[in-house]
Amino acid sequence: MKASQMSARRITLTTDFGEYDTYVAQMKGAILSRNPSATIIDGTHKIPRHDITRGAVLLGELLAAFPGGSIHVVVVDPGVGSDRRIVIASIAGQFVVAPDNGLFTLVSDRVEQVVEFHHLDESGSVSSTFHGRDIMAPVAADLSLGREPTDFGPVTDEPLITIDLPPAKLTGDIIQGSVRAIDGFGNVTTNIAESMLHGHEPKSLVVEIAERRLEGLHSTYANIAAGELLALIGSSNFLEIAANQASAEKIIGCHVGDEVRVRCTG
Amino acid sequence: MKASQMSARRITLTTDFGEYDTYVAQMKGAILSRNPSATIIDGTHKIPRHDITRGAVLLGELLAAFPGGSIHVVVVDPGVGSDRRIVIASIAGQFVVAPDNGLFTLVSDRVEQVVEFHHLDESGSVSSTFHGRDIMAPVAADLSLGREPTDFGPVTDEPLITIDLPPAKLTGDIIQGSVRAIDGFGNVTTNIAESMLHGHEPKSLVVEIAERRLEGLHSTYANIAAGELLALIGSSNFLEIAANQASAEKIIGCHVGDEVRVRCTG
Amino acid sequence: MKASQMSARRITLTTDFGEYDTYVAQMKGAILSRNPSATIIDGTHKIPRHDITRGAVLLGELLAAFPGGSIHVVVVDPGVGSDRRIVIASIAGQFVVAPDNGLFTLVSDRVEQVVEFHHLDESGSVSSTFHGRDIMAPVAADLSLGREPTDFGPVTDEPLITIDLPPAKLTGDIIQGSVRAIDGFGNVTTNIAESMLHGHEPKSLVVEIAERRLEGLHSTYANIAAGELLALIGSSNFLEIAANQASAEKIIGCHVGDEVRVRCTG
Repeated sequence: MKASQMSARRITLTTDFGEYDTYVAQMKGAILSRNPSATIIDGTHKIPRHDITRGAVLLGELLAAFPGGSIHVVVVDPGVGSDRRIVIASIAGQFVVAPDNGLFTLVSDRVEQVVEFHHLDESGSVSSTFHGRDIMAPVAADLSLGREPTDFGPVTDEPLITIDLPPAKLTGDIIQGSVRAIDGFGNVTTNIAESMLHGHEPKSLVVEIAERRLEGLHSTYANIAAGELLALIGSSNFLEIAANQASAEKIIGCHVGDEVRVRCTG
Repeated sequence: MKASQMSARRITLTTDFGEYDTYVAQMKGAILSRNPSATIIDGTHKIPRHDITRGAVLLGELLAAFPGGSIHVVVVDPGVGSDRRIVIASIAGQFVVAPDNGLFTLVSDRVEQVVEFHHLDESGSVSSTFHGRDIMAPVAADLSLGREPTDFGPVTDEPLITIDLPPAKLTGDIIQGSVRAIDGFGNVTTNIAESMLHGHEPKSLVVEIAERRLEGLHSTYANIAAGELLALIGSSNFLEIAANQASAEKIIGCHVGDEVRVRCTG
Repeated sequence: MKASQMSARRITLTTDFGEYDTYVAQMKGAILSRNPSATIIDGTHKIPRHDITRGAVLLGELLAAFPGGSIHVVVVDPGVGSDRRIVIASIAGQFVVAPDNGLFTLVSDRVEQVVEFHHLDESGSVSSTFHGRDIMAPVAADLSLGREPTDFGPVTDEPLITIDLPPAKLTGDIIQGSVRAIDGFGNVTTNIAESMLHGHEPKSLVVEIAERRLEGLHSTYANIAAGELLALIGSSNFLEIAANQASAEKIIGCHVGDEVRVRCTG
């Protein structure tokens, strides 16, 4: 591999570790011990503990935001120390190193190759409780140096585990979807992709959530009065329900998984 | 531009995005997609949502702390998607990429050049809701590669927007100022610059805030008993009211904007 | 020093500054002003304010996690501005720049050399309140460029200050220890090193904390039911009391310093 390609092999770290401890720094120490020139970017470390659904959503966001050659380490791992697999999945020219516990659910149809491994070095010092530092970080470091996934284990055909995150469905004039994620501002993102709304007049769409009924799709927060709800296409290209300068989550009182309907009569 | 100068063109990111989401990471992905060798530093992402006053204060701190050639991206942007301008301002050999909504208030007298632009690439995919990722980050990346502000848009003479952050005033023996910022420790920073106090005997100054009256300027927190209030010159060279190992904010019960007076009788 | 060695001289920053302000960014600006190519890693900035015990624990973790040549800056500094020393301690091929206030307590027996200094440049502009930015960061930057500790001040034989963090003791069949740290998940780490338990059958050990009695040492969280307490060797090689997918701290109601006993009858 050429130097220019290797410099593209930056590493992102995304975990449920929080920022109170040095766990993330310990992962970075493990990476820099192997690749002193590694570029390491934090995804976020504030995934609620063991929230695989949120990890799956954020993994999709990271893959969309980073260029080819990037290596994403995602550690949301309630089964650490059990016999769950750790895998390297190749997706659109990027690599994801993560436990196979459902984190790949939303990107599984784009996975090109899966390599599985349990331990980097069975003779080495591997903690039973911190595979992020002792297994996944070293693998990511070695990938960033130009090693290939198959250097770490066999290619497997066994399907990646998926959790129950059903896609939105179109039935007649109605798209039946659900709340997929809620961000730190209280913006409510659904599983209804922009592409499902193509061919409809934005003004004619009606979005329903809880007892609310939002008429028309807006193009930006700034179009309506502060504190009012609106529907728009969010920055990840999914239907989003937001409030201008306020929390849609609080106004609506909704949660991840709640039902969202779009009436496409235009 | 020489390589050595380009390496000086590091990028800082300062936002009100919080750390729960991947929004900051998405900005970094956009930067690294254009400049794989970019050095990116977080200012803070904990500006209270839409708090332009705080953004203005922190921008001043960053400009003081970073060397020439640095590029500061500040995203506190309640008007995202409206017709507010995005600008590149040149200040003391550094660049600031930010919406023109008051964030420049405290540094506007030091701005040497303003370039304005609305979209990096009108044919490209530009979100209406995430200009930090889709417009400002790419511009910062290109600046870090050695491009000049005028590559992105025309120089403008239209004044930058300022918000109401009046400077302190000297009337007779009294400096009339106000609380400019309160930090995470509860230290209370005013808008009274150290230079306004030159020529006065530190021991003779009397600082008044709320019902409190603090006699003399101290040189360090360690000079007084734990839990006691003191006035001193803070690390940004403004008058600060602090408490040794305690929160002055809580002891005083003050807020940003509250009145502060200094009696200079010495 | 060779370039390859210098690239190993990365800098970690660990403070009680929190993330609301730009204080950490200001330290990074000071470092990059001197070494534009510095690699800077955050340890954590969420040490509770002035908690030297926690700083001492985290310093030990960082030294274990990072490779030789690393430079660790630790700023937990209630005595900033007093006459407490700032030192550069050499430990196992790494450098630590920190105030001498007890932060070295847990690593003092491994310190190879101590250099002390009070001010980097007495003629320069040094804040009385922000030695992290004005003294420690510049020293770390210069070390990262290949300068040696003795360039900054004299080697001293005066012992580093230690705070009361007694080691665990073996008396007969009983190890008498205490809670050393509690992490963000509520995992309870003790001062009982794995090495003290060598030679005993893991299943035969009994761990006592508060009114609780935990039988046997487990090898991983996944071995027991969710919500149940277990004892195991944590990722830093000390005895830890944890709960599978729950907070041991909350279940037990314990605090740093509380007594922990291990009965070694096997």
